[in-house]
Amino acid sequence: MTVEETLKPLFEEINRLKPKFIQRLADAVAIPSVSGDESLRPEVFKMSQFLKSELESLGASDIQLKPLGIQPPPVVDPKLELPPIVLARFGSDPKKKTLLIYGHYDVQPALIEDGWNTDPFKLIEVNDKLYGRGSTDDKGPVIGWLNSIEAHKNLGIELPVNLVCCFEGMEESGSIGLDELVAAEANAYFKGVDTVCISDNYWLGTKKPVLTYGLRGCNYYQVSIKGPGADLHSGIFGGVIHEPMTDLFNIMSTMVDTSGKILIPGVNEMVAPVTEKEAKLYENIEFDVDELNLASGSNTAIYQTKKDILMHRWRYPSLSIHGIEGAFYGGGAKTVIPAKVIGKFSIRTVPDMDSKTLDKLVIDFLNEKFKALGSPNTCVVELIHDGAYWVSDPYNDSFEAAKKATKLVWNVDPDLTREGGSIPITLTFEEQLKTNVLLLPMGKGDDGAHSINEKIDVANYIEGVKTLSAYLHYYGA
Amino acid sequence: MTVEETLKPLFEEINRLKPKFIQRLADAVAIPSVSGDESLRPEVFKMSQFLKSELESLGASDIQLKPLGIQPPPVVDPKLELPPIVLARFGSDPKKKTLLIYGHYDVQPALIEDGWNTDPFKLIEVNDKLYGRGSTDDKGPVIGWLNSIEAHKNLGIELPVNLVCCFEGMEESGSIGLDELVAAEANAYFKGVDTVCISDNYWLGTKKPVLTYGLRGCNYYQVSIKGPGADLHSGIFGGVIHEPMTDLFNIMSTMVDTSGKILIPGVNEMVAPVTEKEAKLYENIEFDVDELNLASGSNTAIYQTKKDILMHRWRYPSLSIHGIEGAFYGGGAKTVIPAKVIGKFSIRTVPDMDSKTLDKLVIDFLNEKFKALGSPNTCVVELIHDGAYWVSDPYNDSFEAAKKATKLVWNVDPDLTREGGSIPITLTFEEQLKTNVLLLPMGKGDDGAHSINEKIDVANYIEGVKTLSAYLHYYGA
Repeated sequence: MTVEETLKPLFEEINRLKPKFIQRLADAVAIPSVSGDESLRPEVFKMSQFLKSELESLGASDIQLKPLGIQPPPVVDPKLELPPIVLARFGSDPKKKTLLIYGHYDVQPALIEDGWNTDPFKLIEVNDKLYGRGSTDDKGPVIGWLNSIEAHKNLGIELPVNLVCCFEGMEESGSIGLDELVAAEANAYFKGVDTVCISDNYWLGTKKPVLTYGLRGCNYYQVSIKGPGADLHSGIFGGVIHEPMTDLFNIMSTMVDTSGKILIPGVNEMVAPVTEKEAKLYENIEFDVDELNLASGSNTAIYQTKKDILMHRWRYPSLSIHGIEGAFYGGGAKTVIPAKVIGKFSIRTVPDMDSKTLDKLVIDFLNEKFKALGSPNTCVVELIHDGAYWVSDPYNDSFEAAKKATKLVWNVDPDLTREGGSIPITLTFEEQLKTNVLLLPMGKGDDGAHSINEKIDVANYIEGVKTLSAYLHYYGA
Repeated sequence: MTVEETLKPLFEEINRLKPKFIQRLADAVAIPSVSGDESLRPEVFKMSQFLKSELESLGASDIQLKPLGIQPPPVVDPKLELPPIVLARFGSDPKKKTLLIYGHYDVQPALIEDGWNTDPFKLIEVNDKLYGRGSTDDKGPVIGWLNSIEAHKNLGIELPVNLVCCFEGMEESGSIGLDELVAAEANAYFKGVDTVCISDNYWLGTKKPVLTYGLRGCNYYQVSIKGPGADLHSGIFGGVIHEPMTDLFNIMSTMVDTSGKILIPGVNEMVAPVTEKEAKLYENIEFDVDELNLASGSNTAIYQTKKDILMHRWRYPSLSIHGIEGAFYGGGAKTVIPAKVIGKFSIRTVPDMDSKTLDKLVIDFLNEKFKALGSPNTCVVELIHDGAYWVSDPYNDSFEAAKKATKLVWNVDPDLTREGGSIPITLTFEEQLKTNVLLLPMGKGDDGAHSINEKIDVANYIEGVKTLSAYLHYYGA
């Protein structure tokens, strides 16, 4: 029997189960599992129990709710327990390949007062869209996997792969404890995993499905300039002391120009050249400058062509100045000379930039600029965190399987995309499990994850379950 | 009888009354008349009643508590009444000169938790210093005038001038309503005023009394740069849109160098040249770079000589960058591209800078710099408030009288100082009453007005009463 022959009744079953699938997502959305709100921590635990009971009823084996201990500071409650990581297994046939699926069951905060049209924790269908917090990020995809398993179970179709589930409850709050758990279970619960599939990002736009094979990294820096012992009055001290803010503006203005060109020597030189194969990938991608302008709410695009925009979002570095800690930030006027100011900026990193070399280039550059000022203030430039970029081979078995699945379900070849932001867990899995990772998004680019009125289209949810299912079968074949 | 002969018994009476004078100040400090704390507004009113009753017992005529109406927003209580301005008169002899004395009876906030060693609203004497909120700013000087009147009254010595008192209760909160009242009473209650004496600033240091004849003005500007419709994620938009923060740093870094030199063409050219007479004033002033370093809590002085430092504080302009509204300002890392950022800076102004010309130079300069960037963001540069500089002739009758008074009491010629900050009411009196103003401080440079552990030295308080008294007699003579 061909994969397509197996999938035909499965897809019909998925169509038939549509009301049940929507109800399952509604049940999940109804639990306000906001990891960033300590007062809602019991709801995050409740959500882990919900998954446990769903996994049990679907016949999972070895279900474990891995405790992660006490949440480290800053917290209000010093005894605040981290929500567990939910592990479960479907099958352990040594003849089958083993796929790890990752998703998260916590959500971003949401209050109707923020501007939601409806109760964020009540899934509501309007014009074939399912509105509710977590509908697309990331309860939709997590429940999507469960839905696929249910359809298999109903029809007595064996899963074509061994499936290892890893669902976390702190993704929206820094994935505290996940790295350690993945490391600890690499040769235990996760032993034998052949590949990892993460469904926690989005289509580039709203029309065409995508597979994602790259993410930029991010090195975040701060420049601390310190002068007086305390904030001073500009009437009394203006003109007679070296002001930290003057120095900060002077040196931080030299790093990047209005068109986003990084002016720190050596940084752009580390960027991998565009290969012919890579350049070709951009040709068919559905995107244009209007989409960028719509998303930014302005006409401030630096580039006007699809290729330029996407390359600068995905495969070239960028430098953004985020703000200043320690200076006046309120409305109105305050005549303060801030005593210590900390400028914050970050550089999005791409292949083949070496993170440590970048740090040295940035820190040396700013120290040189500061030295040239001849100021008696002190200046300290530091990296405050870094996360590496990630690029996968979009022609490996897992990607090829996902391409076939997408083509079958959506009747179109998926765009192969990268993202400008980072999903740190991608790299964790790749490094710890020594395997490759596929990012297979379910929702659309306009779903509004993290925003008000978050939604997933009914079509994306249901066809998404089919896509995940087909991916399992093509990959297992 | 010479002035000195008249003053001799008066000074003895002041010495004799010292315990009573300290008690009177203690009674005033015990009323927490914090104008910036709405919940304490009844205490500010109570303080105005305290003054009224003191003035009555001293024989003042025409005592008026001028209501100023409802405090304009922002306020919590929309019906919050402004504290009244207390007016009173001692004498109206057309043959005598008329002196207006100004002071304020409200104080800065103070909580023992802020770090006070003792209850801020209980005057306490430690090592010949009187600690308590308002002791030096400005209840000490206000009560000082009353003390002088009491000493005169006790001895049956006629006041050598007609005295008009103007005590306000909103000085620490922007002097709301004062300008209007001064304007309204210029030809009524204040008709015939020959000169104004304000005791609401401080000696330059701690050793030598001063008279103050100049203040810098302040023009406060903001640069608003707007791009995207909302704050954006730097992962997704970094490198593909023109970032407002990049533009803001680029243009705001061009205004001033680390040594405080204003780089906006035309600004320094407006500054009045130093005359020989003015230069001489700096020679005897007690001050050095160590005092500046002590005050700034650092060794970040731009100039090392007394003359350079004081000239740049008092008679040259300065430009300070205060902060940014709309950008990230917290601790840690946030990868935001702020959509609209508002840079705040101000220029301290001096003779002969023309305020409107300055505005034009600043606004045109920044607009040019922004235009040169070629950014599609929008940039608006605006003045948000201005206050003019003030310089008096330190050789007029009032200053000469104050010099003699200081010399008699302190046995030293006072330093003639200016200040880098502004006291807007100085200019209001000068302009509205068409008269000159003398700033005659009572407290020392280390009194800590606005800080914790505010104090006035017993010597400054008591010798200050003598100085005010002697000033009245020399001026009246």
